[in-house]
Amino acid sequence: MRLGTARVDGATRAVVVAERSVVPLPFADVGELLGHPTWRDIAESALAGAPDMPADLDLAPVVPRPSKVVCCGHNYAGHIREMGRPVPQHPTLFAKFADTLTGPSDVVTVPDWAEGLDWEAELAAVVGAPLHRATRAEAAAAIAGWTAANDLSVRSWQRHTGQWLPGKSFDRTTPLGPVLVTADELDPGAGLALTCRVNGEVVQRGDTADLVFDAAALLSYISSFTALAPGDVVLTGTPAGVGAAETPPRSLADGDLVEVDLEGVGVLRTPIRIETTRRDADPGPAKEVPHE
Amino acid sequence: MRLGTARVDGATRAVVVAERSVVPLPFADVGELLGHPTWRDIAESALAGAPDMPADLDLAPVVPRPSKVVCCGHNYAGHIREMGRPVPQHPTLFAKFADTLTGPSDVVTVPDWAEGLDWEAELAAVVGAPLHRATRAEAAAAIAGWTAANDLSVRSWQRHTGQWLPGKSFDRTTPLGPVLVTADELDPGAGLALTCRVNGEVVQRGDTADLVFDAAALLSYISSFTALAPGDVVLTGTPAGVGAAETPPRSLADGDLVEVDLEGVGVLRTPIRIETTRRDADPGPAKEVPHE
Repeated sequence: MRLGTARVDGATRAVVVAERSVVPLPFADVGELLGHPTWRDIAESALAGAPDMPADLDLAPVVPRPSKVVCCGHNYAGHIREMGRPVPQHPTLFAKFADTLTGPSDVVTVPDWAEGLDWEAELAAVVGAPLHRATRAEAAAAIAGWTAANDLSVRSWQRHTGQWLPGKSFDRTTPLGPVLVTADELDPGAGLALTCRVNGEVVQRGDTADLVFDAAALLSYISSFTALAPGDVVLTGTPAGVGAAETPPRSLADGDLVEVDLEGVGVLRTPIRIETTRRDADPGPAKEVPHE
Repeated sequence: MRLGTARVDGATRAVVVAERSVVPLPFADVGELLGHPTWRDIAESALAGAPDMPADLDLAPVVPRPSKVVCCGHNYAGHIREMGRPVPQHPTLFAKFADTLTGPSDVVTVPDWAEGLDWEAELAAVVGAPLHRATRAEAAAAIAGWTAANDLSVRSWQRHTGQWLPGKSFDRTTPLGPVLVTADELDPGAGLALTCRVNGEVVQRGDTADLVFDAAALLSYISSFTALAPGDVVLTGTPAGVGAAETPPRSLADGDLVEVDLEGVGVLRTPIRIETTRRDADPGPAKEVPHE
């Protein structure tokens, strides 16, 4: 099954996307649907008879309000090498806020002082059942399904300090979708092509079978320290080919179109808008730190 | 005014804490109260006549469900030096999840494989109005008030990689409270004593006037990349004296009592419980990364 969250009349609505029809579900979004233990049955029965919706859906992030969005960096061997990083013994994790997410066809706008906007095509796992200190097998069984993400990163702000949060959390800069494909229909461990294109040029060409820590390993590790809930989203990292690794580094410009194409899931199409705006706000340190 | 969130009959309730009485407010918690533009008037009028509540309140985190919790590391000169860090040009920020927070008198329990549990006494600012790309002055005006936090950190997991998230996000390990003191009644810039005690021994003795980036600077910087909403919480960092900086490093043990005492706000009293439990979950990397 393919599940989505559609924008309808100023609100959102969970939908099942079938081959030639779109069926609305009685839930505000896919996250709310997944909160019901019988979400699979609910969605399957809806497919049987409910009325269609227009095919040209305006899609929201497939889970628009997850309680947790956890992201992994340095998780493909090729990308680890291109960023000059050591071999990881543990997954490198950071968090995003729910409102960092945006829809699969939405324009992403960043201010011109957010220099170095870069693409990161990713496979994302969506949690379908509560997880707390889960084994690998428990974690694997709790994955509701798979979707695609573009972890668009503002490299200058990511590098302000050793902690990446600012460059990874500009509002509405992480396209997520277009749909969730349920875990019974897709196996990233067997290898799905993960491609990123900028204005049609292929810049990343990965394979989800090459993840260092696969989704089950990530969910098990994450659930060791923090409980995961249905609808939570885990971004599994990006393959080689980011702009920051080019010589000289390359970044996205106003008017660019970035596409993340995940085999079996679909395409995120993101027009980039660089907004010219003065930044009033950089008060700097309130105190000088003595050099000692 | 002093605002709190009390646990009552399995739910929570926002309250105003007056000198000799506690007045319930018609909101589930302080975060929900702050979502109303006239929150100050609402709380002040309630003080006039409503019935009292028992004085021995069971307090929840003062804001139990913030949409964003942003934390700053390396923000006191003394702590920067003891951790051997360079002088920061930008604040070092990371996020916590809402359910990482816990009440001001709650027991904090961590598993015994979470080695190196350490204290971090902090001043926290609570946002009282929406903020987006705010100037320093706008940010300062949007601070609803001040509270205390203990950013209890699992040093071993904090150091698994360069990103601190795991060690900073064990569930229910960040006491927040006991109350919010509104900004009109307290000025951390003028200097408030911030003390941490372990079993009565003073281990940290800081002064909030020594913050490198004060709360207005932090909120302005944060709001440059992500919008802040009423009830959001910003932890401003910890002064010198953490256990990790001692030689040899010191950490909390089962049965310890940690107290964070913020002048003008109150005391967080946190009994520590180290739980003996097997960790089934450490699947490790799914793939070997070739050394090249």
